[in-house]
Amino acid sequence: MKKNIEVCFSPELIHLHDINDKIVVVVDIFRATSTMITALGNGVSSITPVADLETCRSMKAEGYLIAGERNGQPADGFLLGNSPLAYLDNAFAGQKIAMTTTNGTLAIEKSKSGAKAILIGAFINLSATAQYLKTQNADILIHCAGWKGKFNLEDSLYAGALVSTLAQDFSISCDGAIAMKSLYETTKTNLPGFLAQASHAKRLQNHNIEADIDFCLQLDQYMIIGKLIGQELVAQSIETE
Amino acid sequence: MKKNIEVCFSPELIHLHDINDKIVVVVDIFRATSTMITALGNGVSSITPVADLETCRSMKAEGYLIAGERNGQPADGFLLGNSPLAYLDNAFAGQKIAMTTTNGTLAIEKSKSGAKAILIGAFINLSATAQYLKTQNADILIHCAGWKGKFNLEDSLYAGALVSTLAQDFSISCDGAIAMKSLYETTKTNLPGFLAQASHAKRLQNHNIEADIDFCLQLDQYMIIGKLIGQELVAQSIETE
Repeated sequence: MKKNIEVCFSPELIHLHDINDKIVVVVDIFRATSTMITALGNGVSSITPVADLETCRSMKAEGYLIAGERNGQPADGFLLGNSPLAYLDNAFAGQKIAMTTTNGTLAIEKSKSGAKAILIGAFINLSATAQYLKTQNADILIHCAGWKGKFNLEDSLYAGALVSTLAQDFSISCDGAIAMKSLYETTKTNLPGFLAQASHAKRLQNHNIEADIDFCLQLDQYMIIGKLIGQELVAQSIETE
Repeated sequence: MKKNIEVCFSPELIHLHDINDKIVVVVDIFRATSTMITALGNGVSSITPVADLETCRSMKAEGYLIAGERNGQPADGFLLGNSPLAYLDNAFAGQKIAMTTTNGTLAIEKSKSGAKAILIGAFINLSATAQYLKTQNADILIHCAGWKGKFNLEDSLYAGALVSTLAQDFSISCDGAIAMKSLYETTKTNLPGFLAQASHAKRLQNHNIEADIDFCLQLDQYMIIGKLIGQELVAQSIETE
């Protein structure tokens, strides 16, 4: 019997899903999980997701580099905002990061109860995540961080991309997964163009970070997965076939 | 400036939307709102949506025909279930109906606070609803009844159909509307085939009501809108151009 794959569009709906024994893939494309994968792919030793700004700030004294963002803007007093580009060229390799973001860390927190494992996903490591999931004996729940509780286009399209990639190996067990698989398959040849309509992409464009958007929509830049071990996200390499 | 149109995928998310002064279009394609439009299109004088079975049952003594369904099955002791076909050929013309359904009546209830007006929508009166909305000076919120709080495909595709029909006249103000407009436009030539994958369609097929499904997916059988006036849904005719 095939394993199941399902999609939850928002942390506001996660209570309707049974997380127990599932692998939860948390996604916040613009930009938390894309940034996390970039950081891990560029050698940071771990990322600790933190719910609030104050706790995150206090971790500086413990030797963490602190990264914080609210409403798409870097937070006051933080070394790093939420741009994936800041981590390129192994800029912070070997360091521990503490990171708090508007929606992403909340979604990770809400994914914990009973999950077999929690991954973070992004377009930039889509194939690695898919390859890993195929080898695991568990149902999958893709948990979209959304925007302040609402459905958002980029996270949902990532869900569609992952479902599409895994469609041969998994049974699609909810309407959200069916809808987004189909939408991804018809828009994937021009994902940036389609997503330019999205509300959050427009917000980000207002902050002059088109380069971040373009970066986050690339496929398969990193052949690692991002996995929560204890309180820390760490990288695991995936062997290319 | 154009009026706005937005989509809410579930009553579980309606608290994130500002209903105030908007026209809310409630949709529960399989089958509450399709059945209501069919009944109104076949001459019933009014439909009173009722949240619970007991209240609905008690209204029989007040002269209402009572219609009730739970989990896709007719409820015990009710004359009518939730099949639109039962109302064809003016079978209950001139009568008052009290109706309770799993998801549809809840969505109507949750749409009331501050709305300028509440309509019920279905594929079978898509053009009539669109035509009416164009003439009104109000933003629109399409409220999908969903399935036990989750996104469902048929209600969301109706939302996409209505957004697609109104795209020239309204500004699309949320990602859910963008997603479903696109999905509807790529699936509309084979809506029944695409929806056959949907979880609720599968449930209904198990109840041997394929005829209901086919009926609910037809476009524009009735040139009326269904509008809540006080506690009653009533029909208003739309002049064809």
